Amino acid sequence: MTKHIVVIGGVALGTKAACRLKRLSPDTEVTLLDKDEKISYGGCGIPYYVSGDVAEAEDLQSTAFHMVRDAEFFRKIKGFKVLTGTEAICIDRENKRVFAKNAKGERLELPYDKLVLGTGSRPRNLNIPGQDLENIYSVGNLVDAIRIKDLIAKGNIGKAVIVGAGFIGLEMAEAFTDMWGIETSVVEVSDRIMPGNVSRPMARMAMKTMEDNGVSFYLNERVLRFEGNGPVERVVTDKQTLDADIVIMAVGIQANSELAKDTGLEVGVTGGIVVNSRLETSDPDIYAGGDCVQVPNLVDGEPGFYPLGSIANRHGRIIGTNLAGGQASIEGALGSFVVKLFDSSLAGTGLTLAMAQKSGFDAVSVRMGQLDRAHFYPEKDFMFFELVVERKTKRILGIQGFGTSGDAMVGRINTVAAILKYKPLLEDISNLEFAYSPPFSSAMDIVNALANVAENALDGHLKVIDHESVEALWLNDENSDSYFLDCREQLDAAPLLEKYPGRWHNIPQGELKDRIAEVPRDKNIILVCNSGMRSYEAQLNLRNLGIYKTQSVEGGMKMLKTWGSEI
Amino acid sequence: MTKHIVVIGGVALGTKAACRLKRLSPDTEVTLLDKDEKISYGGCGIPYYVSGDVAEAEDLQSTAFHMVRDAEFFRKIKGFKVLTGTEAICIDRENKRVFAKNAKGERLELPYDKLVLGTGSRPRNLNIPGQDLENIYSVGNLVDAIRIKDLIAKGNIGKAVIVGAGFIGLEMAEAFTDMWGIETSVVEVSDRIMPGNVSRPMARMAMKTMEDNGVSFYLNERVLRFEGNGPVERVVTDKQTLDADIVIMAVGIQANSELAKDTGLEVGVTGGIVVNSRLETSDPDIYAGGDCVQVPNLVDGEPGFYPLGSIANRHGRIIGTNLAGGQASIEGALGSFVVKLFDSSLAGTGLTLAMAQKSGFDAVSVRMGQLDRAHFYPEKDFMFFELVVERKTKRILGIQGFGTSGDAMVGRINTVAAILKYKPLLEDISNLEFAYSPPFSSAMDIVNALANVAENALDGHLKVIDHESVEALWLNDENSDSYFLDCREQLDAAPLLEKYPGRWHNIPQGELKDRIAEVPRDKNIILVCNSGMRSYEAQLNLRNLGIYKTQSVEGGMKMLKTWGSEI
Repeated sequence: MTKHIVVIGGVALGTKAACRLKRLSPDTEVTLLDKDEKISYGGCGIPYYVSGDVAEAEDLQSTAFHMVRDAEFFRKIKGFKVLTGTEAICIDRENKRVFAKNAKGERLELPYDKLVLGTGSRPRNLNIPGQDLENIYSVGNLVDAIRIKDLIAKGNIGKAVIVGAGFIGLEMAEAFTDMWGIETSVVEVSDRIMPGNVSRPMARMAMKTMEDNGVSFYLNERVLRFEGNGPVERVVTDKQTLDADIVIMAVGIQANSELAKDTGLEVGVTGGIVVNSRLETSDPDIYAGGDCVQVPNLVDGEPGFYPLGSIANRHGRIIGTNLAGGQASIEGALGSFVVKLFDSSLAGTGLTLAMAQKSGFDAVSVRMGQLDRAHFYPEKDFMFFELVVERKTKRILGIQGFGTSGDAMVGRINTVAAILKYKPLLEDISNLEFAYSPPFSSAMDIVNALANVAENALDGHLKVIDHESVEALWLNDENSDSYFLDCREQLDAAPLLEKYPGRWHNIPQGELKDRIAEVPRDKNIILVCNSGMRSYEAQLNLRNLGIYKTQSVEGGMKMLKTWGSEI
Repeated sequence: MTKHIVVIGGVALGTKAACRLKRLSPDTEVTLLDKDEKISYGGCGIPYYVSGDVAEAEDLQSTAFHMVRDAEFFRKIKGFKVLTGTEAICIDRENKRVFAKNAKGERLELPYDKLVLGTGSRPRNLNIPGQDLENIYSVGNLVDAIRIKDLIAKGNIGKAVIVGAGFIGLEMAEAFTDMWGIETSVVEVSDRIMPGNVSRPMARMAMKTMEDNGVSFYLNERVLRFEGNGPVERVVTDKQTLDADIVIMAVGIQANSELAKDTGLEVGVTGGIVVNSRLETSDPDIYAGGDCVQVPNLVDGEPGFYPLGSIANRHGRIIGTNLAGGQASIEGALGSFVVKLFDSSLAGTGLTLAMAQKSGFDAVSVRMGQLDRAHFYPEKDFMFFELVVERKTKRILGIQGFGTSGDAMVGRINTVAAILKYKPLLEDISNLEFAYSPPFSSAMDIVNALANVAENALDGHLKVIDHESVEALWLNDENSDSYFLDCREQLDAAPLLEKYPGRWHNIPQGELKDRIAEVPRDKNIILVCNSGMRSYEAQLNLRNLGIYKTQSVEGGMKMLKTWGSEI
C-alpha cells in the first residue's frame, strides 16, 4: 500500500526530507505545502543578496546548477507535489489529516500516514510603538529581502538603524555599510555584540573591526519606539534619538511551533517542538526538524534551539531516511556558528564561559593569539581564540575564534566542534593532530598552543590579566600600584617607552635575570609582550627569582590592540 | 638534588623538551648537544626558502619575534646549555653517560640522570652509481638548502630532476618551477605521486595540476644511475635519460635510531625507536620522540613512522612535562598531512584504502566534489574528497582532499582527523556540525555530503564508476556496450553532444521519465552530470523504471576534468 506523506513547510527541512524520502522510496506519495509562494531558498544568504554579493533573489532559490527550486522543479525532478501559498491551519491527529487554506481562500483537507513539520522560525518582535511604520523590516523571508534591496537601490536610504547585534544584525550592517555606503548604527540592549555566542573580550574585538569599517554601535541601549509619518524617520532609545531611513529588526528568532502546540504536541522551554533523536515528536506519526524544534546541546545536554539552515538540512535527511523505513538519528547540536564581518570573522562552538557557568560547570576560559601558519611563511594572519574549560576535570566545553584568517580560523573551530560530543580533555586538544605544512599551520598549531596555555593557567604556572582589567589599571594609574613591564626586545618596546616615559618599562625577557634589581618588589607587575608567550616565560623567571606578584597580559600587545586598548 | 638532563639533538624535539622542562623546573640542569652548527630550524620550511618565499635561511631558525634560535639564545633566554657541532658517539646506559665528540675532535663525557633522544631523521639514499657527483642534493638540513639556493641564484641551473614524488619532491618541484622557471622533471618509481598517502585518482588530480604548471612527471620509472663529469649532467632511468643541472634526491626519510640501537634500546619495524605513550624508551631513564621514534597509528594500531615537525614539537612538550615530574602522554598519531601544489593543495589523514586493506579492513572508498561554500556566494572553489570506510561497520578509516580551496579543504581534513581516534561511524560524519554561513560553507557541507554518498553507496542505492574505468570505456568504445548519458540540462551537455555526435547522449534528469524509451535496455548506461548528484538521482529513477545496468560517474564532469580525462 502506498503511503501518503504530508510535509508542512518547504524551506530547508521540508524539501530535503521529501527529496530524500522520494530517492529511497519512489512509490511513496508526498505532498508538501508552504504558506509562501517562494520556497526552498537559502535564507542565510539574504544579507549577501541585500549587499549585492548575490545578484538576484532567484540565485538563493536555485540549485548549484542554476535551476530554480520552485513547485514545478520538485514535481518534475523530485517527483512530489508542492502546494505553495497554502497554509496549514490545523492538524487532526486522531483522523490523521491536515486542514489548510490556499491562496484563493479555499479550505483543503490532506490525509496523511506520516506528517512532517518543517514550519521553521520567524523573527521576534519587540512590540513597541511605531513598529508598523513603513521601511521597518525584519529579515524573515525572501519577499522582505527583495523589498529592502529595492528600497536601497532607489538611492533614498542615507541612514540605517539596526536593532539587535546578533548574526543577522551584523551581517545586514556589513551589507549596508560596505556595499551601499549607508551610515549604519546598531543598537543592542546587552553589553556586547553576539551576546549569546561569545565572551565580552571576543565580542569587543569583533565590534572594533566593524567600527573601523564605519559601523556605529550603541550597547546597553534599549529601543523604546519608532517615529515617523508613514515611513520611519527616527529610532528613540532610552539614551538618544537616531535618524533612520530604514530600520532592520534583528532581535532574535523564534520557532513556529504554534501549529504543533495547538494539536497537543509537546513544545519545550525554548519554544521549539520536542523531538527525540529520530526526530519524532510526541506523536510517533509526526516528525519535526529544523528551525521549529528543540534538541539537546551536545555539551551540557540542556534543551537548545538552533535555527540554522545547515542543521535543518541534516534533520531533513534524517526524517527522509526514517520515513522510508530507515534508522537515522542525531544526538543533538552544538550551536557552531560563524559570521563574516568585513575582512574578519567571528566563530564559535559549544558553551561560552557564561553558558557553562549557567549550566553549573566550574569553568574558566583562556584567550590567546597566534599566527595561522608558520611565522616565516610570507602570507599569514593573526587569529585569536578563547577556550572554555571545566576547571577540575579539564574538560573542554567550548571555543570561540576571531581574526582575519577566515577559513583557517573557522577550520579550527570545526575541528574542536567535531570532538566536543566525546567529552575531550585539555590533553586531547593539546595532542590534536593538524595537517602540518608551513603554508597551512605552525609546527605548534594555535589550537594546541591554546590548550597548553589553558593547562599552564589551570596548573598555576601562568597567571593572566584580561584586557578590561589591564585597561582599567592603565587608565587609573595614579592610584595604582601596578608596574607595566614590556618583555620584548628594546626595538619593539621603544615606541611605548617614548610615548609613556616613566610609566612604561622594558626589560627584554633574556635580560631579566641580570636586571632583576630594576623590578620593584612591592608592585603588581603587569608583564606584556607581543603574544603572551614571552611574558609567560618572564613570569616564570620572576617567580624563580622570588617575585610572585605578576600578571601576564593575555594575548599580548597583538590582542590588546585588536581589542582596542588606549595604550 | 639538582638533576642533570642530557638532550641529544636540537632541531624540534630536543629544544622543545628542554624549554618546557626549564619552564616547569628552572633548577634542573640541561645540556643539549647537536652535531650540526645550526639548530632549532624549521626544516619543513626549506622548500619555501629555496623558492624565495622565505628570504633568508636565518628566518627558518628565528622565533616569531625575529630572534635567532642559536646556542646563545637558548643559554640566555631559555637557561640551558647547548653544544653545537658536538656529536653523540655512544651511550653507556649502565653508568648513565653519553660520549660525544666536538668540532675540534675532542671527546666529551656527559653524565645524565635522564636522557632525551631527539636524533631526528635523515633522507634515504638510493645507493646507485654516480650519487656522489656534484649538484646532487637531498633536502636534509639547512646547510644543504643554502647550497641549493646559492647554486640556483647563480643562474646556472636550467634543468632539474627530482627523484621521488613525496612531499619534499613535490614542494621542491614547485619551488624550482614556480619561482625560478627551471625545467623540472620528477621521476617516481611507483604508479602515482604521494604513493604512501593518497589513492590513485586523488594523486592524478594533484599531478595534473602540477603538469598544468609546467612540471613533468615520469611514473613507474626507476632511476638507475647519475652521469656527469664533476657535476651531474644526466639522470639515467630504466626508460630514458634526462638532462640535469641539479638533482634532488627525495626518496624518503629514515629514523636516526642507530645510537639507540647500539646501546640496546628497542627499535621497531619502521626503524624508529620504540616508545610508550609517555615517550619512554625501553630504558625508563631515556625518553625519545619526534622523527626518530615509532608510535602506533591511531586508526589501526599498527607501528607508524611520522617524521613531522608538528609531531616532534608535541612530543617535545610531553617529554619536558614528564621530565619535570608531570604526567603527559600521547596515544599515537594519524599521519595527517598537507602539501601545497601551486594554487592547489593535497591533504589527508588516517588510512588510505590501500593501507586499510593491508591492515585487514574490508574497506571501500568513495570520492566526490562540491563547492567549499554556498553556491550562490561569489567567491568559491571546488574541492574533492575521498572517504575510506570499513564496509560492514561503516567505520571511518581515513580521508583525503584535493582542491584549490586551501585552508577550507585542510580545515575539513583536520575536522575528520580530530575524531578518528574515537572510531567514528558514517553517521557521525554525516551529522558533523560545521559552522555555517554562506561565505564559509554550504548548508550541506561537503564532508556531510561525502558521508551521505558513502552511505548511499554502501546501502546499494548508488553504484559508481571511477575515472580510470570511465576513461577506459570511452577510449575503447568500439567494442564496448556502454552508453554515455549526460543528465545535465541541454545547454550544459551541448558542447559534448556536438563534439561526440552519436556517442554522447543527453536526457536532462527531469525528462528521464518521459523519454525513457530512448534509453537502451541492453547497454551499460554511464550516467554523468556536473558533480555526481543528478546522475545519482537519474540512476535511482532508471532503477525505478526497470533499468538496472547503470553506473554514475563519481564526482561528475568536474572531477573528471580535474582528473585530466580525454572526454
